[in-house]
Amino acid sequence: MTDLSYLLWVSPAGSAIALLFVAFTIFKILKQSKGTTEMSDISDFIREGAKAFLKRQYKTVAIVGAFVTLIFVGLAYIGEISFFTPYAFVHGMVTCALAGYIGMMVASYANVRTTNAARRGLNPALRIAFSSGAVMGLFVVGIVLFDISLWYFILNHFYLGDFLLITNVMVSSAIGTSFMAFFSRVGGGIYAKSADVGADLVGKIEKGIPEDDPRNAAVIADQVGDNVGDVAGMGADLHESYASAILAAMCLGAFAFATRGMSFNGMVAPLLIMFAGIISSVIGTTLVKLKKRKASQAALLSAIRKGVYGASVLSAISSFIIIYLLFGIQYIGFFVAMLAGLVAGAVIGAVSEYFTSSAYAPTKSIAHSSLSGAGPLVINGMSVGMMSTAVPIAVVSIVVTLSYFIAGGAVNPDFGLYGISLATVGMLSTLGITLATDAYGAVADNATGIAEMSNQKQVVKDRLDMLDAIGNTTAATGKGYVIASGAMTVLSLIIAYTVLVNRLITPGVLTLSLTDPVIITGLFIGGMLPFLFSSMIIRAVGKGAEKIIEEVRRQFKEIPGLVKGKAKPDYARCVDIVTKTALKELIKPGLIAIISPIVVGLVLGPKASIALLVGTLISAFAMALMMSNAGAAWDNAKKYIESGRYGGEGSDAHKAAVVGDTVGDPLKDASGPSLDGLMKLMTMVSLVIAPIIVKYALL
Amino acid sequence: MTDLSYLLWVSPAGSAIALLFVAFTIFKILKQSKGTTEMSDISDFIREGAKAFLKRQYKTVAIVGAFVTLIFVGLAYIGEISFFTPYAFVHGMVTCALAGYIGMMVASYANVRTTNAARRGLNPALRIAFSSGAVMGLFVVGIVLFDISLWYFILNHFYLGDFLLITNVMVSSAIGTSFMAFFSRVGGGIYAKSADVGADLVGKIEKGIPEDDPRNAAVIADQVGDNVGDVAGMGADLHESYASAILAAMCLGAFAFATRGMSFNGMVAPLLIMFAGIISSVIGTTLVKLKKRKASQAALLSAIRKGVYGASVLSAISSFIIIYLLFGIQYIGFFVAMLAGLVAGAVIGAVSEYFTSSAYAPTKSIAHSSLSGAGPLVINGMSVGMMSTAVPIAVVSIVVTLSYFIAGGAVNPDFGLYGISLATVGMLSTLGITLATDAYGAVADNATGIAEMSNQKQVVKDRLDMLDAIGNTTAATGKGYVIASGAMTVLSLIIAYTVLVNRLITPGVLTLSLTDPVIITGLFIGGMLPFLFSSMIIRAVGKGAEKIIEEVRRQFKEIPGLVKGKAKPDYARCVDIVTKTALKELIKPGLIAIISPIVVGLVLGPKASIALLVGTLISAFAMALMMSNAGAAWDNAKKYIESGRYGGEGSDAHKAAVVGDTVGDPLKDASGPSLDGLMKLMTMVSLVIAPIIVKYALL
Repeated sequence: MTDLSYLLWVSPAGSAIALLFVAFTIFKILKQSKGTTEMSDISDFIREGAKAFLKRQYKTVAIVGAFVTLIFVGLAYIGEISFFTPYAFVHGMVTCALAGYIGMMVASYANVRTTNAARRGLNPALRIAFSSGAVMGLFVVGIVLFDISLWYFILNHFYLGDFLLITNVMVSSAIGTSFMAFFSRVGGGIYAKSADVGADLVGKIEKGIPEDDPRNAAVIADQVGDNVGDVAGMGADLHESYASAILAAMCLGAFAFATRGMSFNGMVAPLLIMFAGIISSVIGTTLVKLKKRKASQAALLSAIRKGVYGASVLSAISSFIIIYLLFGIQYIGFFVAMLAGLVAGAVIGAVSEYFTSSAYAPTKSIAHSSLSGAGPLVINGMSVGMMSTAVPIAVVSIVVTLSYFIAGGAVNPDFGLYGISLATVGMLSTLGITLATDAYGAVADNATGIAEMSNQKQVVKDRLDMLDAIGNTTAATGKGYVIASGAMTVLSLIIAYTVLVNRLITPGVLTLSLTDPVIITGLFIGGMLPFLFSSMIIRAVGKGAEKIIEEVRRQFKEIPGLVKGKAKPDYARCVDIVTKTALKELIKPGLIAIISPIVVGLVLGPKASIALLVGTLISAFAMALMMSNAGAAWDNAKKYIESGRYGGEGSDAHKAAVVGDTVGDPLKDASGPSLDGLMKLMTMVSLVIAPIIVKYALL
Repeated sequence: MTDLSYLLWVSPAGSAIALLFVAFTIFKILKQSKGTTEMSDISDFIREGAKAFLKRQYKTVAIVGAFVTLIFVGLAYIGEISFFTPYAFVHGMVTCALAGYIGMMVASYANVRTTNAARRGLNPALRIAFSSGAVMGLFVVGIVLFDISLWYFILNHFYLGDFLLITNVMVSSAIGTSFMAFFSRVGGGIYAKSADVGADLVGKIEKGIPEDDPRNAAVIADQVGDNVGDVAGMGADLHESYASAILAAMCLGAFAFATRGMSFNGMVAPLLIMFAGIISSVIGTTLVKLKKRKASQAALLSAIRKGVYGASVLSAISSFIIIYLLFGIQYIGFFVAMLAGLVAGAVIGAVSEYFTSSAYAPTKSIAHSSLSGAGPLVINGMSVGMMSTAVPIAVVSIVVTLSYFIAGGAVNPDFGLYGISLATVGMLSTLGITLATDAYGAVADNATGIAEMSNQKQVVKDRLDMLDAIGNTTAATGKGYVIASGAMTVLSLIIAYTVLVNRLITPGVLTLSLTDPVIITGLFIGGMLPFLFSSMIIRAVGKGAEKIIEEVRRQFKEIPGLVKGKAKPDYARCVDIVTKTALKELIKPGLIAIISPIVVGLVLGPKASIALLVGTLISAFAMALMMSNAGAAWDNAKKYIESGRYGGEGSDAHKAAVVGDTVGDPLKDASGPSLDGLMKLMTMVSLVIAPIIVKYALL
């Protein structure tokens, strides 16, 4: 056996490449002009709001986190959990917060520059918006690889070459990331949608003023929401998926090859695949540009697609080589598993697009039902959302079965499980660029808002509207991808958790029979939690929106000249109100995510705890798809009507569509994406407390 | 061991008592006056419509059924399935159809007599409406017990005393019932809601005429819908739950006590419990009456509750005696399991009432959000619906775990599984009266419609409105109960299926590990199917409603004098249109229910097939609760506003509430209840084809 340990250097190397590219891109963005003082002021306002929210959010999470850390320290002190866990927890929280913060800062620098660049043309605007998205994507993957390297070198110092132990500790080290990601995602979602729904209800519907009208005191809060929700929240969320997927695969790889003395190969393969994915993503992002000065929507979309698909092809080719060199041709099934995941990600994205873009039948039929009123439109959208769950879930199921068996699971189940985790790694391998297409949408959205507030010429607004429309499409594609990769990640983690529990219990292997009552109970409760959790998030958004409505109404009444546009509203107060509400409403759903696996585990034992996670995964996966796709379809049906169909803006059909959009807003941007955080945090909590559950469970 | 075979006579005896009571009650109802010719004409019209629909529905199902029968005959001929199955299939279809038909006929005779009785006072009206509900309830339980007796005597002739084999054949004999119940429930639901939504959209919203206005061509179709959906559909549905729950328990009981030579005791216990439940229900229904001539809503509700709770207490006491005498005091855990199910049914009913009655906070908060518009009202209702899933699912989980362990599952798993099935039997033991409270609502609803159409005095309408309001509450309670008992029944069937498969495979026991990829795939696909299925049902209702709207509009335009009430609309045409659409739209969801377990079973094997059923159960349970409770809450929020709050009828708040009601209608009465049918039919199909799956599956 040759010494392959030099391969570990790819991890810091990949990290360095990604972070250098990030620094270079930030530098390029900052060089661009911010436009007029008015524009720059608005942008500063948005950034201040977002910073204020993130600061308060991080403070809140820090307080809760400090409390959890103390518990971890106590548990580690009495030897119940690894003594690395408390440190891992704090470390993960900090890096995850950093990923969200940097992404948000860059987005907020990019938005005004995108607006300004749109005054010159579409291509410069696209370049800036997309680059800022790429910063987010590559910063996330860069920092994760850096982190993993650091961890590995520390742990290798303690557990010299015991890859099983090392990867075991590492996989539960993602708890801090998970914790932070959960609160970022949920808090950001509640914030964003409270501000959005509140601003819309009081502005567009009650006062009849356009979206992003500067007289509406909630507009800045709305823009801030895009940054803290779609950028910081999603960045943190994917940071976690990426880290967890790699760690779970490393853990299962080391385990699968333990008896063959090839643990190192099993462990290092996911790292190498991710390294190749980073290089591919960097190359992919440079492909996103327009050839002609004046471009159609189709050309824009194809520019972005060229980047994503290019990166995917490169990633696939290099992964083939990696697997071949590491394991030899007899294990090439691992490559097929990885490829299945990569392809599945693209397919699921395309399905989301089909169900949510107004170019296709489902969204058109929703728009059509606006003629019968708001009721039929809402119910039709729900039906489309439900229908949209079928293909993605079928695809993921096929990937799971295929990757298990092609990796040799029929002969050696451990190989099969490793195959499933490599499929997850494959799906996330091009995250650098996929996240870029997603985060870019928020920047385009903000740029449109700034153009509206600073009264830009119509041609500039039109260009930005086009960017924004594409942003909506890529965001829909991105959301399907985020949900599916989240589900695959959770599945990998659950498998890792089961393997871990099996090693902890004596003797042998846990029987996880479907007819065992504690398994049934775990599945039932797990299947119900996403409903309870979503209900809380929706209610939180409702409360936040209500407070915003009251405040905007108050300002319209009390600030003289505001209605006529002769005075400025107090934007900061709205930002402050939503911030407080969002953070307050974060507590209850957070407790559910943390406490439910602990209670079920301690009362009903490890079997029920695994079933709980599986049950949550099953229903959260379907619900997240339904909510996110229904919401996007309603949104686009409304935009479709606004483009002049069925009487256009102001018609009864449009009013019905606005109702649909209002219903969809909290679903697609708050409760839907939050389910991802719920599943992941519950699983990470279970992983960390596994030794305690095994030892002290009542049943 | 003493010969206990005389105990089997309780089954035909129970049946006879129930059916005699039914005949007596029908006789009493028919003695009442039908009121004026106008009233009687309307009632005849409704009955004709319902009969026409059921006739066509039965014909359609018969054609599909004949095809399935042929397949069964073929499979039985080559020895792949039991040669009783084809006969069982036809027999089950016929009896289930009969239950729906008789219930519907009695309801349609009772509705006009209730209207007429309301002219005398509230108590007589309550007595008639409730009695007709009781006919439905007791006819269902009576015919099921008759059927089981018949089956037992036939099978005992062939397999003398081999209770394992007898119960095994019997449990899969419910396939015909399941098939018919599915189509009745789904077809009835689509019919009812197409007519309802269509009539409301074109009548109340477009033309601004009141509900049940005789000028609206769809009103008769709407009334017919209540009968074919809420009465015939639900009757068939519960017929199946009742039969399946008993059969599953008999099967598991015979199996659990096989090694002790007490198979007979295990098998006969569920029959005896149901016998006691029937007597208790008959006594309970006689308790439902008002003392005072003029009564409040509270008094009405308490009269009904007295009946239900009285029956429950009687049923519990007699079950204690039965278990004690059959098994002795050391097995009294079986009684506790039965009791847990009985109590859980009541608790879940109460929870549904809390979340859907305008007397409590959730529905009030929905009504309040009407002030912010339709969007917030809809989203708030969804949140309430999601929240309402938590307690019922937690309660069922507790019942499952408790009944397993208290029945001795820790020592002997077969006892535990029998305990779970007895909990299901306990929950359904008082079905005779619980179904009465549910079916009564449809009669009250129809009676109100007839009063409106025949222009009764305000005092009569007010009395009937009160009956109707209570009907809504008991229907909500009933729905929670139907869903929970359906879920428990499916769980019992899945357990019976697993036991059956374990006996078919050699060697030994199927390992159902949660980390097996085919199990994961089964769970994923199963969890997704209820979403796909609901989407189809909702779409079907939408299509039906659209056709109705077109037709009513056409009649208003083309029939001279109709708008002014000087001409009669063509009711029959509307009835005909909905009938055709409902039956056509029934096909696709039906195929999903039948084909999915076959395909998954044959491709991925029996393990995946079990997982598929469990996955469907997990998400269908939560979704059905959510849809049914959200729908009822929207409905009652609208009624709350109509009672004068937030500006009352015609206000903007009311318009928003009407949107909520339109959204909720297909959810609560079509897709929600249909999920029950989906789970049950899928499970029954799996049971029947179990031998084929075990033999021919690819994996």
